[in-house]
Amino acid sequence: MAAPSNLKDLFVHTLKDVYYAENQLHKTLPKMEEKATDAALKKGFKLHHKETGEHIKRLEEIFKICGEKVSGEKCPAIDGIIKEGDELMKENKDDVTRDAAMVAAAQAAEHYEIARYGALVSWAQRLGMEDAKNILRDTLAEEKDTDSKLTRLAEDKLNKKAKA
Amino acid sequence: MAAPSNLKDLFVHTLKDVYYAENQLHKTLPKMEEKATDAALKKGFKLHHKETGEHIKRLEEIFKICGEKVSGEKCPAIDGIIKEGDELMKENKDDVTRDAAMVAAAQAAEHYEIARYGALVSWAQRLGMEDAKNILRDTLAEEKDTDSKLTRLAEDKLNKKAKA
Repeated sequence: MAAPSNLKDLFVHTLKDVYYAENQLHKTLPKMEEKATDAALKKGFKLHHKETGEHIKRLEEIFKICGEKVSGEKCPAIDGIIKEGDELMKENKDDVTRDAAMVAAAQAAEHYEIARYGALVSWAQRLGMEDAKNILRDTLAEEKDTDSKLTRLAEDKLNKKAKA
Repeated sequence: MAAPSNLKDLFVHTLKDVYYAENQLHKTLPKMEEKATDAALKKGFKLHHKETGEHIKRLEEIFKICGEKVSGEKCPAIDGIIKEGDELMKENKDDVTRDAAMVAAAQAAEHYEIARYGALVSWAQRLGMEDAKNILRDTLAEEKDTDSKLTRLAEDKLNKKAKA
C-alpha cells in the first residue's frame, strides 16, 4: 500500500496488519489445541480459536465502516511470534514443559494483539469513529482477558506440574 | 541449544531469547530517537535506551545466578517487530504521523517484553529462584511503565497533533 500520510491511513494500515495476524492465529490455534496435553489448556485454545473467528468478523465490519476493501498485509511480527512458538512446540519433548512453553507463546501473541488493538482504539477515538472504537475496545478487552486466564492457568497449575 | 526438557531449560532458553531481544532494541532505540520529531518522544526513546542497557546488565546477572554463559538466541519475533517498525518509519513521510506510528511500534516491542518477562518471573518463582525473580520483576514493572507512558504521550499529545 501507499505510505500512510495521516492518522486515517495509519489506522487502515494497522487494521490490515492485525487482520493478517488474526487470520494466522486462527490457523495456528487448532494445532496448539492438538499439541496441548493439559485438558484445561486444550479447552482454552479451542475457545480462543472461536473468539479469534469472531475478532476477524469484527475487523471485516470495521473495514466496511472505513469504506475499505477487506485485506490483510503481511506482518513479520506475528510471523516471527508464531515461528518461535512452532519451534518451541517441536523442540519440547516433555509434555508438561511443552504446555508451559505453549502458554508463553500464546501470551506473546496476545500481547502483540493488545498493543495493536490498543493503538487502533486510541486512533479510532481521535478520528471520531465511535462505532469502530467500541468494537475494537470489546476485542481489546477479550484479548486482555485471555492473557489473564493464561497467566492463572500457568501459575495455578501448569508450572506446578512441570519438572523444575 | 538442546531441546528444553524441564522448566529450568525453558527458563534459560527464554532468557537467551529476551537477551537477544533487548540487545536488538538497544541498537534500534537511538535510530528511533533520531527519527522522532516530538521533543517528549525523543526524550522518551533516549531514556528507554538507557533503561534497556540496564535491563541487559540485569539479564547478565541472572545468567550468572543460573551458572550459564551469557548468550543470546536469535528471536524471530523481535526481529519481525523491529522490521515492521523500520518499514513504518521509512514509509511515513509526514512527521506527526510518523511519530504516532513509532509510538505504536515501540509499544509492540514493550508488549513483547512484558509477555517474556511475565513468563520468566512466573517460572523463576516456581523454580525457587528468589533473587532472579526480584530482578526480573523490577524490569517487568519498568517495561509496563514505559508502555503506559507511551499511551499517555500518544493520547494526550501526538494523536491530537496528527492530521486525521
